[in-house]
Amino acid sequence: MREIPYKIYLEENEMPTQWYNVRADMKKKPAPLLMPGTLKPATVDDLSSVFCRELAQQELDDTTRYFDIPTEIRDFYRMYRPAPLVRAYCLEKKLGTPAHIYYKFEGNNTSGSHKLNSAIAQAYYAKQQGLKGVTTETGAGQWGTALSMACSYFDLDCQVYMVKCSYEMKPHRREVMRTYGAKVTPSPSMTTNVGRKINEEFPGTSGSLGCAISEAVEAATNQEGYRYVLGSVLSQVLLHQTIIGLETKTALDKYGIKADMVIGCAGGGSNLGGLISPFAGEMLRGEADYELIAVEPKSCPSLTRGTYAYDYCDTGKVCPLAKMYTLGSGFIPSADHAGGLRYHGMSSIVSELYDQGILKATSVKQTEVFKAAQEFARIEGILPAPESSHAIKVAIDEALRCKETGEAKNIVFGLTGTGYFDMVSYQKFNDGVMADYIPTDEEIAKVAATLPQF
Amino acid sequence: MREIPYKIYLEENEMPTQWYNVRADMKKKPAPLLMPGTLKPATVDDLSSVFCRELAQQELDDTTRYFDIPTEIRDFYRMYRPAPLVRAYCLEKKLGTPAHIYYKFEGNNTSGSHKLNSAIAQAYYAKQQGLKGVTTETGAGQWGTALSMACSYFDLDCQVYMVKCSYEMKPHRREVMRTYGAKVTPSPSMTTNVGRKINEEFPGTSGSLGCAISEAVEAATNQEGYRYVLGSVLSQVLLHQTIIGLETKTALDKYGIKADMVIGCAGGGSNLGGLISPFAGEMLRGEADYELIAVEPKSCPSLTRGTYAYDYCDTGKVCPLAKMYTLGSGFIPSADHAGGLRYHGMSSIVSELYDQGILKATSVKQTEVFKAAQEFARIEGILPAPESSHAIKVAIDEALRCKETGEAKNIVFGLTGTGYFDMVSYQKFNDGVMADYIPTDEEIAKVAATLPQF
Repeated sequence: MREIPYKIYLEENEMPTQWYNVRADMKKKPAPLLMPGTLKPATVDDLSSVFCRELAQQELDDTTRYFDIPTEIRDFYRMYRPAPLVRAYCLEKKLGTPAHIYYKFEGNNTSGSHKLNSAIAQAYYAKQQGLKGVTTETGAGQWGTALSMACSYFDLDCQVYMVKCSYEMKPHRREVMRTYGAKVTPSPSMTTNVGRKINEEFPGTSGSLGCAISEAVEAATNQEGYRYVLGSVLSQVLLHQTIIGLETKTALDKYGIKADMVIGCAGGGSNLGGLISPFAGEMLRGEADYELIAVEPKSCPSLTRGTYAYDYCDTGKVCPLAKMYTLGSGFIPSADHAGGLRYHGMSSIVSELYDQGILKATSVKQTEVFKAAQEFARIEGILPAPESSHAIKVAIDEALRCKETGEAKNIVFGLTGTGYFDMVSYQKFNDGVMADYIPTDEEIAKVAATLPQF
Repeated sequence: MREIPYKIYLEENEMPTQWYNVRADMKKKPAPLLMPGTLKPATVDDLSSVFCRELAQQELDDTTRYFDIPTEIRDFYRMYRPAPLVRAYCLEKKLGTPAHIYYKFEGNNTSGSHKLNSAIAQAYYAKQQGLKGVTTETGAGQWGTALSMACSYFDLDCQVYMVKCSYEMKPHRREVMRTYGAKVTPSPSMTTNVGRKINEEFPGTSGSLGCAISEAVEAATNQEGYRYVLGSVLSQVLLHQTIIGLETKTALDKYGIKADMVIGCAGGGSNLGGLISPFAGEMLRGEADYELIAVEPKSCPSLTRGTYAYDYCDTGKVCPLAKMYTLGSGFIPSADHAGGLRYHGMSSIVSELYDQGILKATSVKQTEVFKAAQEFARIEGILPAPESSHAIKVAIDEALRCKETGEAKNIVFGLTGTGYFDMVSYQKFNDGVMADYIPTDEEIAKVAATLPQF
């Protein structure tokens, strides 16, 4: 058997040339998006006023199994991909586990996460359509950074509405975006109707993701040659993110490794969906079996404690409705430090896979997540993002379980990014002042009661 | 001819197993270190009270050509090495140059720079010697971060004296170190005699690198089982950093590429020395010819405007004296944003290679450096450290010169690290409020007059 290196790098000619659309292999498809107002299934024309046409088509296509990755996107991918599949030899040794632990590391790029995989695709299609620019919102800032990089590469204007409290608390993220030429506006701003309205109603508000989305959508529809783009939740985003899972699968196959378990953190579901899609596909086609595990924060447990129902994707209720596991669009997650996982709903693809039993889910507390993050950083050398560390926590737990049972399982998890811009959170952990918040059943039920009924 | 990929990754079994000591190939050797006080050449015994014994031996050995890299260090290297040699296809295209541009990227690790290459070696030898821990100083924080990671891996205590203004201005760097378990103390502190003395003389001082060195040395000598370690300037550090140049050479050879020009930024000289050593070795042995270029900031131009003389390595004058190109240990560089290049002197190996004409040197202004950094970030996707961007600036200039002459030169430069913790500096550039400072001839002469005379 070939010796497995610390890092499995594919050759550039082994990189995937197509994205994989797992919906094509699902007998029961995710429920269609519904337009707000009419509550009728969204058409490509409906979506094209807000999204690029090509992306609207990808969004609604649940039968085409593979989409060619355009050459221009593959060229960009080659600047930071293939991403390594790392064998966590040091962690295994430290834990004394018979398990083999692998992680797919998506943090080796300036956006610091997997977000760039979809940002470059969305920027490309915008450019192809002859657009001038795109608008988006960003909370923690990873998506905004990724989109800024992508737009800079294709010479597109990039307008980012950044939640005001993040804009002020994370000036470094903001400056990375500016360095890439993006126009970053604190939200709520005075540049949109919705922004002005909110500023008037709530003077001094520090903003919210819901408001930033509404501003970005308004800015896109009010400017000639602009469209709105989104970094997670949507099926198009999951499609682009399958590059993660496809590379992982190819790397494992190259060394004859059969994964027993694939673990990913879940916020909107894009990295998780991208990672597990090729594995879920094999399960759906009856070719193989895997244990696929979504890890979410206990503070925002959409899969483990949410309702599977139609809900609005945004707080402002301007976007289409999706059937998904949701806590309700009015659910306000606590100020958990994994900002990227603070989303009330879940990708409709991930939700449907979960509902069909292809995917399992579990939830973890943030203090135990940071403990795992610190341990991982010290042993494997990579300082992980709080979001990614949810997967680390569960991977370590599973490896320790193998230590008890003596099983030499192959555990694969997604390490979506680095925590270099999360040091304020790490400081809280280092100082021992980080708390956990778990919503009560009453709190969950109260918001669930407000889900749209029809 | 084999097609050259975007990123040349060596296989793990192609990684160097020995460091290369360029001094062995120098007919005229760098002048010996002199002990302060006696002004006699330092012996291994002299140095062993401050440094680990094995490192003291490496420091003084100018005849052994290769040193085996211990297995434990090679295992650690495999967590983040081999580092990629990147073909800057996108940059070439954007510049429209016939030149081929390659960069060795050392930023894919949590310390964010090449510093880890020597930190892990120094921590290893400390552990081998049975020490409890090590002390060091850090200014910008890259070295402190690297050492924290290395000590955490070998379970050594790590005490970092961080210049007080950095400690306060760069809390994120500080937290990375703490996450790796290091004890970080703002310098001047009240934990050492020299710290107390300085605090008494200059109440409210924000500290200096010179003072932090003196505190770290005192802390090492006053604690049983501790030694002091340093991240640049020393010959032992250059030795460890030759892993950069050796990997670069192997990757180039693998694809039959002959470098015409090798460019690196120069502060204390460790990354530059490590990068150019194998190339300089071939020149010294008369086997090949290269254009080797050191790039320093115009604000701190030790090679281009300094004196080749014996000088103190630290402001506190507690360390041995080295013969080097120096501006004088009393030279206070302006608050340039490339903190890692703000050093009054230069590695004695680099100095001697420069004096022998093996190495050339040039200097650049920080505003033009940040302009190049921004251009590079937008085209190649990597947000570079201000230090590294000095090399980028000159590489771009050389590529543009090739455009004029039509020469298809192979330009190789060292991209030592990322700028994620330098966003305050980028913000100054983005806001258009960054200035340049170039010392006058009078200022240079005034400090040069204070060089030790003997």
